[in-house]
Amino acid sequence: MFRKVLIANRGEIALRVICACKELGIRTVAVYSEADRHSLHVRFADEAICIGPPRSAESYLNVPAVISAAEIADVDAIHPGYGLLSENANFAEVCRASNIKFIGPPPEVTRLMGEKEKARQAMKRAKVPILPGSDGVIASAEDALAWAQQVGYPVILKATAGGGGRGMRVCRTAEELPALFHAASTEAANAFGNGDLYMEKFIERPRHIEFQVLADQHGNVISLGERECSIQRRHQKLIEEAPSLQVTPKMREEIGKTIKRSLEAVGYQNAGTIEFLMDEDGKLYFIEMNTRIQVEHPVTEMVTGIDLVKAQIRIAAGEKLSDILPKEIPIRGHSIECRINAEHPEKFTPSAGKITAFNVPGGNGVRVDTAQYGEGVVPPYYDSLIAKLIVHGKDREEAMQRMQRALGMFVVQGIHTTIPLHEKIFQDEEFRKGDFDTKFMERFFERQKQK
Amino acid sequence: MFRKVLIANRGEIALRVICACKELGIRTVAVYSEADRHSLHVRFADEAICIGPPRSAESYLNVPAVISAAEIADVDAIHPGYGLLSENANFAEVCRASNIKFIGPPPEVTRLMGEKEKARQAMKRAKVPILPGSDGVIASAEDALAWAQQVGYPVILKATAGGGGRGMRVCRTAEELPALFHAASTEAANAFGNGDLYMEKFIERPRHIEFQVLADQHGNVISLGERECSIQRRHQKLIEEAPSLQVTPKMREEIGKTIKRSLEAVGYQNAGTIEFLMDEDGKLYFIEMNTRIQVEHPVTEMVTGIDLVKAQIRIAAGEKLSDILPKEIPIRGHSIECRINAEHPEKFTPSAGKITAFNVPGGNGVRVDTAQYGEGVVPPYYDSLIAKLIVHGKDREEAMQRMQRALGMFVVQGIHTTIPLHEKIFQDEEFRKGDFDTKFMERFFERQKQK
Repeated sequence: MFRKVLIANRGEIALRVICACKELGIRTVAVYSEADRHSLHVRFADEAICIGPPRSAESYLNVPAVISAAEIADVDAIHPGYGLLSENANFAEVCRASNIKFIGPPPEVTRLMGEKEKARQAMKRAKVPILPGSDGVIASAEDALAWAQQVGYPVILKATAGGGGRGMRVCRTAEELPALFHAASTEAANAFGNGDLYMEKFIERPRHIEFQVLADQHGNVISLGERECSIQRRHQKLIEEAPSLQVTPKMREEIGKTIKRSLEAVGYQNAGTIEFLMDEDGKLYFIEMNTRIQVEHPVTEMVTGIDLVKAQIRIAAGEKLSDILPKEIPIRGHSIECRINAEHPEKFTPSAGKITAFNVPGGNGVRVDTAQYGEGVVPPYYDSLIAKLIVHGKDREEAMQRMQRALGMFVVQGIHTTIPLHEKIFQDEEFRKGDFDTKFMERFFERQKQK
Repeated sequence: MFRKVLIANRGEIALRVICACKELGIRTVAVYSEADRHSLHVRFADEAICIGPPRSAESYLNVPAVISAAEIADVDAIHPGYGLLSENANFAEVCRASNIKFIGPPPEVTRLMGEKEKARQAMKRAKVPILPGSDGVIASAEDALAWAQQVGYPVILKATAGGGGRGMRVCRTAEELPALFHAASTEAANAFGNGDLYMEKFIERPRHIEFQVLADQHGNVISLGERECSIQRRHQKLIEEAPSLQVTPKMREEIGKTIKRSLEAVGYQNAGTIEFLMDEDGKLYFIEMNTRIQVEHPVTEMVTGIDLVKAQIRIAAGEKLSDILPKEIPIRGHSIECRINAEHPEKFTPSAGKITAFNVPGGNGVRVDTAQYGEGVVPPYYDSLIAKLIVHGKDREEAMQRMQRALGMFVVQGIHTTIPLHEKIFQDEEFRKGDFDTKFMERFFERQKQK
């Protein structure tokens, strides 16, 4: 096992990794910007090294500064958390060249998964279902009809030169396709000087569903089930759950096998997440893979009992999955996470500043991951996430009741947070039914306006 | 279900009950003494009523004041928490007479279990193993030999008029019994003017093991497994765990059946705890029953997934166990609780006062039940328990590692707490092995002195 690990991150995830290291008996080294001098990740690490000015580009994203700190502190490994350097293959390569273990997949795999089209093709080869698309330009309305016939309606026509919705048409029947094809092509030609179109399967009400995986350095891969992450605003997840009400045990097992096969094929290592869109019929289509721990990993921890960050570290130290995980990993109960961001709850503008009062909820089934504290400061330079409020209950109903009481007991004064927004979402009928998709927040804000 | 519940308690357990009510959609009424005006249980209840001056006798134990508050607030039920009025059968009777549901067993059962010898006899009739004792005076060394022969050595001779260890002898073999009998009898005669002796089975290294039960108002009883509570100082529990390493699944099932039978026989209702001593051979002997929720109930919640306080309320509202509990309740992982008391960690003297900094640990597998907060005050009038730090891990080893990292992140400034004592206990080899008994703390302090 590693003797000493540097955490190349800040905020709640830096503290999360420190907790995991402490439980494994590993010494920890924090790095921090000048703005984070009084942060809890600095306080609770065994050592802490300042690596630069407040702006991330000059501190947390400054590869030479991070590597220097790692060399000065003489660490065995670096945990990158999420965001920042976590999916930077060059950083992973520098770690390797410096003889420091990067706690994550090898740089080659990170690079492959970072190039969306290559990742799509790799998954396609491994028979993972991907969102069907015409490989190249569709020359005529006749070709479009033939392609749509093959993949099924609805489909979407898109301009190859396009953007901003121009030259784009959703088509729901064969009858309307020819007219829409010509309209889109003409619009694209007028807008971009190029009328070429391609096509994709269109999902009217997609859900965002992702699968957590762990892979050791000995070729073993396991899927730890899914998370439902459809509650998003501007592609930023707000609420995540595990398990998904839409994934049956049979689907979970089948997708798990497909994922296992595909990740064995690409030589994946460490923790990762495979993101899918789910259509109205419950079919899943691969979108992309995240080669790091996710913000929302706790909901999987709550229902599986597996500590994912400890598993990451043990995998990087060479342990086998069979030594890390129990033989059977049943999904138990239901877990929900709310992201508590330092933001105006309606305008979504960042709200940095000094916290004047801070009371985290506790009690049965409540977990809070945060690096904030009373009298602490939220600096304006970084991601607005200041806490993750996670609950676990015997079913979704109990988890929702628990979240509502925990939100009501979460006191943050001095700055604005998303707590009031979450309280409203948990009162929303559509949300409570679990019958939503990635467009939920648009409809939710419409409903709120009408109130 | 109840519309409104009054919580006749303070501190963390009052907040615990408020959480349960909120999750069940029940309005809450707090009562408070003048010293608790700024307490969190007052802040988070829907209504709050001051019931008197700081001293418990004039406020929290003042039955007319509590009942008046309940009548003014027009509640359906009262939850007594633990301590204070929770095992006061008269209070339960006044509730009944006032047409307010007391969330606990009927007063008759509370009264029966409150009288130790009657409870012992009731359990004996239901074939629950009780610590063998001579029913009355042992007249001679010959009778003593015969009785000891029957129950097995070691036995203890005690003066019927006795106290303070005088006229008391532990006897380990038949050879030494006659001499010890005469010595004890002579000592008793000299000390108390009465040489009469009685005898009990003696347990050299007893463990304190207790079983959590739930019983509905329809005659159904279930045992939810055991808690290991041997780590005590002056009969005050300090650390509790679930499950016990000494209880096998077979023992758990058998004791569960015995408990079920005995509680059905006495007409038990609501939550309760049956306390046993375990001898060196793993045999359990009934000591007493607590007819209320226990301080240490969270460790059972963590390993079973059952919310015991919500179950209490639903039982009192007339629901059946079969509607409250899942069909199967497997024990999952291991949970440990540390009682964080406002006390000097070595002198054990109370340490009231203003808290100047307060940071509760969070993250994976950590639960904190507390009504304290930064800048809050610990008044000198009440129990010294200010927080319960509870962890859950996949096994005892992970739970211990988690507790150590959580203790290290629990910041309380301004007053003394038992946190440093817990940190030392978790480094102790005997504790880590799990090979301890109720005399552990005496030996632990001896070892500490020698350091």
